[in-house]
Amino acid sequence: MPSLRDVAERAQVAVSTVSAALNGTRPVAAATKLRIEQAAAELGYRPNLLARGLQSKRTRILALLYPAPRGGFGLTEMQFATGAAEEARELGYHLLLSPENADPIEELRHLTGLGLVDGVLLMEVRLDDERVDFLTRAGVAFSMIGRTREPGPIDYADIDFAVTARDAVAHVAGLGHRKLAFFNHSTDAYAAQYGPAIRAGAELAGAAALAGIGYVDDFRPGSAEEGGRAFEALLSAHPDVTALAVMDDHVAVGVLAAVAARGWRVPRDLTLMLVLSSSRVAEMFRPRLTTMEPPSAELGRLGARLLIDRLEGRARSLGEGGPRQRLVPCRLVIGDSSGPPRRQVP
Amino acid sequence: MPSLRDVAERAQVAVSTVSAALNGTRPVAAATKLRIEQAAAELGYRPNLLARGLQSKRTRILALLYPAPRGGFGLTEMQFATGAAEEARELGYHLLLSPENADPIEELRHLTGLGLVDGVLLMEVRLDDERVDFLTRAGVAFSMIGRTREPGPIDYADIDFAVTARDAVAHVAGLGHRKLAFFNHSTDAYAAQYGPAIRAGAELAGAAALAGIGYVDDFRPGSAEEGGRAFEALLSAHPDVTALAVMDDHVAVGVLAAVAARGWRVPRDLTLMLVLSSSRVAEMFRPRLTTMEPPSAELGRLGARLLIDRLEGRARSLGEGGPRQRLVPCRLVIGDSSGPPRRQVP
Repeated sequence: MPSLRDVAERAQVAVSTVSAALNGTRPVAAATKLRIEQAAAELGYRPNLLARGLQSKRTRILALLYPAPRGGFGLTEMQFATGAAEEARELGYHLLLSPENADPIEELRHLTGLGLVDGVLLMEVRLDDERVDFLTRAGVAFSMIGRTREPGPIDYADIDFAVTARDAVAHVAGLGHRKLAFFNHSTDAYAAQYGPAIRAGAELAGAAALAGIGYVDDFRPGSAEEGGRAFEALLSAHPDVTALAVMDDHVAVGVLAAVAARGWRVPRDLTLMLVLSSSRVAEMFRPRLTTMEPPSAELGRLGARLLIDRLEGRARSLGEGGPRQRLVPCRLVIGDSSGPPRRQVP
Repeated sequence: MPSLRDVAERAQVAVSTVSAALNGTRPVAAATKLRIEQAAAELGYRPNLLARGLQSKRTRILALLYPAPRGGFGLTEMQFATGAAEEARELGYHLLLSPENADPIEELRHLTGLGLVDGVLLMEVRLDDERVDFLTRAGVAFSMIGRTREPGPIDYADIDFAVTARDAVAHVAGLGHRKLAFFNHSTDAYAAQYGPAIRAGAELAGAAALAGIGYVDDFRPGSAEEGGRAFEALLSAHPDVTALAVMDDHVAVGVLAAVAARGWRVPRDLTLMLVLSSSRVAEMFRPRLTTMEPPSAELGRLGARLLIDRLEGRARSLGEGGPRQRLVPCRLVIGDSSGPPRRQVP
């Protein structure tokens, strides 16, 4: 078993320098540090990190906890994870990708009870989330990407739905539309207390009222086929709707098919936009759809940074120990699906 | 600082039972284990995992190493990661999501030199991959999702491109097509030694030859716009092509637009299929595209399992210590874009 001394000899430095380089107790020149790490790797010298963790009770490992996704993760969730991993890495931490079992609390007990992680980053946060209650009771440091109904003193990074809704409404109102419809996530997601659906719906309604334009959100299709049918039902009930925002990209597929089926064209006869879809998805449509693109990688990074700040006591100096809660709006990416309202033919 | 004894008292079990439950040294009834983990969590008892790692030189942590993706990761990469994380979790391991810096070798030195991980899972493997050389030299256990040009004795899980190509060709030949074209990834990806592009191209050519049908792969568009232009160029040079396989979903968008622009329809005038795209992407097209769907989550799971088997010495008994190399074909998911060849109008 190689010792610290073996590493020092191979790297041709003092033992204290090896210790400083591997434990980060004092600065070591980058080239020297590299030589030491190389020597340690070549010799298979390993126990330092663990010994350090044992001394400091710190492992510099964070866990990103997420439930098994219904219907698979999309690009947004991937960007939460890679953004958080990159931020953690840049700040000297490591991020575990921790899928929940059937019982998320059991998973949390496992992760935190055995001293593996310094803190937990929650993803896919529900309005009422038992994981939040557990972590709060257990006194484990954590932050959220997303937020519960009443986050209270908990750190989080989430979409600024108020600004996002205002920007979306300003976009369609600025083009001259007087009535906007919104196809929110299906009632399934509502049942699951999906915060983004609740908040997007509430904020769009508020923003439309403030802007003095009409707003309809009676329909919540959950698939392409339902999207096409919902579009026809929408026009029957509200023939004066000229702009439609859609939460689910598959629903947009069905809407476009229904638009074509009635001999309409986007944007001539309908302004169609996505809400919370990446521009990479929006540009796969023809015409390219306008979208309110979520700041996914940024939210992942922020969530990790808030957690690390708290672990390192920076939260106290920055915010008097209170919660740090960051809201970032979606970015309006205008595609080829936005235009002035169609001329109403009675 | 709570001790093992404190945990034992709170959980109302013997100290040796706590030790067994937390260290996994002998089986403990599930309910008892849960009670002990809960007690440990509530008391904030933490050092066991580290102490155990220090004793055994094992941390039960694996790292999934990946380069910063050009143009962002897609669903396939997300499924590699979540599949690997789930398999690791089920086998009692944890998976780090480890983005590479500019220098992947520096990242590997950091991960392996400091004793953080037991082994490494490589993703986005290039035909010649310096990470493979480093890990081999350093004697670190690792496996690959994907594979180098000559994997030699290294464990990997990859797509079975030969079977995938045979199935794709059988699908179009079975519909009566006599000439297939393939739009492979752009020359950029070739320059980057992207294995899937190289292997898919070679195997499709071979499968077409075996099936006795014509095959063209001169065009490698890299965007929707290039896809449309490449389609027109293809038809000029090879007017007898009636089936087209496409690697990049954005290129398929451009092909569909070009098909519509010339008054053609899919599948009446062209059978169009995706290669290595998920069915979730394929079903966003109208018509829904046929796709050879990659077994992404399965490959992620396999990669993790191969690595864990090797770490735990199972590889030896199963395969005489030799490499375990697993190939899984893509799954043909037939959409609404497959049909018999158009009638040739001279």
